[in-house]
Amino acid sequence: MTSFAFHLDAVDPLTAGRAGRLQTPHGTLETPAFMPVGTLGTVKGLLPAQLRDAGAQMVLANTYHLALRPGEKIVAEHGGLHRFMDWDGPILTDSGGFQVFSLADLRKLDDDRIVFRSHIDGNLLELTPERAVQIQEDLGADCIMCLDECPPSGETPEKVRKAVDRTTRWAERCRAAQTRTDQALFGIVQGGVHPDLRRRSAEGLLAIGFPGYAVGGLSVGEPPDVMYSTLDCTVPILPAEKPRYLMGVGRPEDILEAVCRGIDMFDCVMPTRNGRNAMAFTSSGPVRMRNAVHQRDLSSLDPECPCIACTRYTRSYLRHLFVAKEMLGPILLSLHNITYYQTLVRQIRRAVIEGRLAEFRVNQLARWAGAP
Amino acid sequence: MTSFAFHLDAVDPLTAGRAGRLQTPHGTLETPAFMPVGTLGTVKGLLPAQLRDAGAQMVLANTYHLALRPGEKIVAEHGGLHRFMDWDGPILTDSGGFQVFSLADLRKLDDDRIVFRSHIDGNLLELTPERAVQIQEDLGADCIMCLDECPPSGETPEKVRKAVDRTTRWAERCRAAQTRTDQALFGIVQGGVHPDLRRRSAEGLLAIGFPGYAVGGLSVGEPPDVMYSTLDCTVPILPAEKPRYLMGVGRPEDILEAVCRGIDMFDCVMPTRNGRNAMAFTSSGPVRMRNAVHQRDLSSLDPECPCIACTRYTRSYLRHLFVAKEMLGPILLSLHNITYYQTLVRQIRRAVIEGRLAEFRVNQLARWAGAP
Repeated sequence: MTSFAFHLDAVDPLTAGRAGRLQTPHGTLETPAFMPVGTLGTVKGLLPAQLRDAGAQMVLANTYHLALRPGEKIVAEHGGLHRFMDWDGPILTDSGGFQVFSLADLRKLDDDRIVFRSHIDGNLLELTPERAVQIQEDLGADCIMCLDECPPSGETPEKVRKAVDRTTRWAERCRAAQTRTDQALFGIVQGGVHPDLRRRSAEGLLAIGFPGYAVGGLSVGEPPDVMYSTLDCTVPILPAEKPRYLMGVGRPEDILEAVCRGIDMFDCVMPTRNGRNAMAFTSSGPVRMRNAVHQRDLSSLDPECPCIACTRYTRSYLRHLFVAKEMLGPILLSLHNITYYQTLVRQIRRAVIEGRLAEFRVNQLARWAGAP
Repeated sequence: MTSFAFHLDAVDPLTAGRAGRLQTPHGTLETPAFMPVGTLGTVKGLLPAQLRDAGAQMVLANTYHLALRPGEKIVAEHGGLHRFMDWDGPILTDSGGFQVFSLADLRKLDDDRIVFRSHIDGNLLELTPERAVQIQEDLGADCIMCLDECPPSGETPEKVRKAVDRTTRWAERCRAAQTRTDQALFGIVQGGVHPDLRRRSAEGLLAIGFPGYAVGGLSVGEPPDVMYSTLDCTVPILPAEKPRYLMGVGRPEDILEAVCRGIDMFDCVMPTRNGRNAMAFTSSGPVRMRNAVHQRDLSSLDPECPCIACTRYTRSYLRHLFVAKEMLGPILLSLHNITYYQTLVRQIRRAVIEGRLAEFRVNQLARWAGAP
């Protein structure tokens, strides 16, 4: 674990916002950081050099998907994900748990294991804490995640408590199953929207001790203010000197609000998924590229954005690509949205370093709200 | 027309192969040349910089498609296709005729006009020689094409003769309709597989006089040797000092054979369409990327190819992308196939300049034939 270190460059005076650097065997991640999602070992439609140009420093890949296709052993034969997908920067893999709960057909869940049917071919498979670690060791990411139980949104406190305790026991087994010393294993705090259960979960994980902590089970359908207040009573329990990762979040405003509450790392499919569906994030709010209003619009999608879509093309051309169902539409808008997210976290980081995150937040929320 | 010039650098001693340079307002095209097809103002899945990196110097766009979507006036508002699609090199547009005959629902065809229904929305539209030129002037390509009648393969000689004569009359009208002086209008030789009708067509066009000549109506279903023998008796009639363009062709071996018969320019959807369908052209013949044989193959798709797909990824990864239906599969294979075609025409050009095209042809055909 000597290759890992987390250093805090600055803490904002008026919010809980932090600017840091996470050192990994594949380079350093400046935080706050947004990780584009490369589910199957590719961020959909983009080459690694384009991600790099967009400002991305770290990407996420999904253990569940890669274990099904092509199988982690084939990735291992390549020397791991970095070489498989030609991304030489830091990579994080999730545990597969969230996808098993959300995508697969769950057949059995007890303390020992999760039995499920693959969403691809219906094969009966199982996931255990040990297997989640083994797959992630084969994939070879820099940061890996403990297997956690993700109860659905709106579950009873009693069931959430049971999931928390199981998640803690599984975290212990994941820790024990680790054989590689060059991967940072993160614990995942669960507990739904219940402050006492969040505390219970965090304390259980802290007793084991991890090089990083994730907050899971949010952005699963609860209103934004519930997510924010859950962060308010979860993040302060986590040690200041470790990186904090809010899983699967989210919209630009969610990222800004979560940084203000002390979160360092994010991932979300939104920039790429929305980009493929013709929705662009811009400095003045979201733009739907298929809208007829863009038909003859020769202006830039976002004059403040340095990406190819914004500097080389018109809104009219981008709309044409989507209307004509051309691949370049999803490509350019994915590239733009990733660039937008990376620009946002870079601006947030600068605001933290300069001690003006509170002011940045007010101004930025007003700009988004004032969008047409 | 002063921006245009065609210069012959070399003529092969044993074949009719030529190496030349076509000067256009947007730069010089080295011939033999292959133009990737950007039907709707985008070569599917690729950015202009990627095309440039692949070695492409000129691209083709389709008048019929662009007139329907987004409409040539919108392209004109951008200042033309070059700025619309961000390609600053030479561009060629076809006349729209071939697509009207192959894609649209033809309603009426006489000397005056073609009436057809759009394949997009069923709207009743018409195309005349004058309208084909007007659209192409709005699109603003460097090389534009006369409207021609393209009779289906296997048509009676009598009908082909009528199409030839109509094509000649339309060529005259296209010439007269031209108002821009910065576009080179090419005449199109028709005549099916009938040597006398090919001669009749060529002589009709030569009497009008064009800065370039295309051979149309081939690669429409006839066997390769019929195409080659038709070229044998068509190309020699065309003036040596003008560029010769074989429309819509074709397979790598067709390009090699056609250069040996004196053709300078080519276009075809094959590298991109096949690439999207997981078929790669390689130095040892075609490779089907979805094939299970590649599942654990850590070797390069084509060790002789300088493209990203071949230098940064394994066959195993490329197969995984196609099996998982990831966009990056079509992107990488399109990029590879375009690179393959550009490498091929560059090698052919070098062989002509060094006077060894006959030898190159024998060796290359043997390599392709010996493919597994």
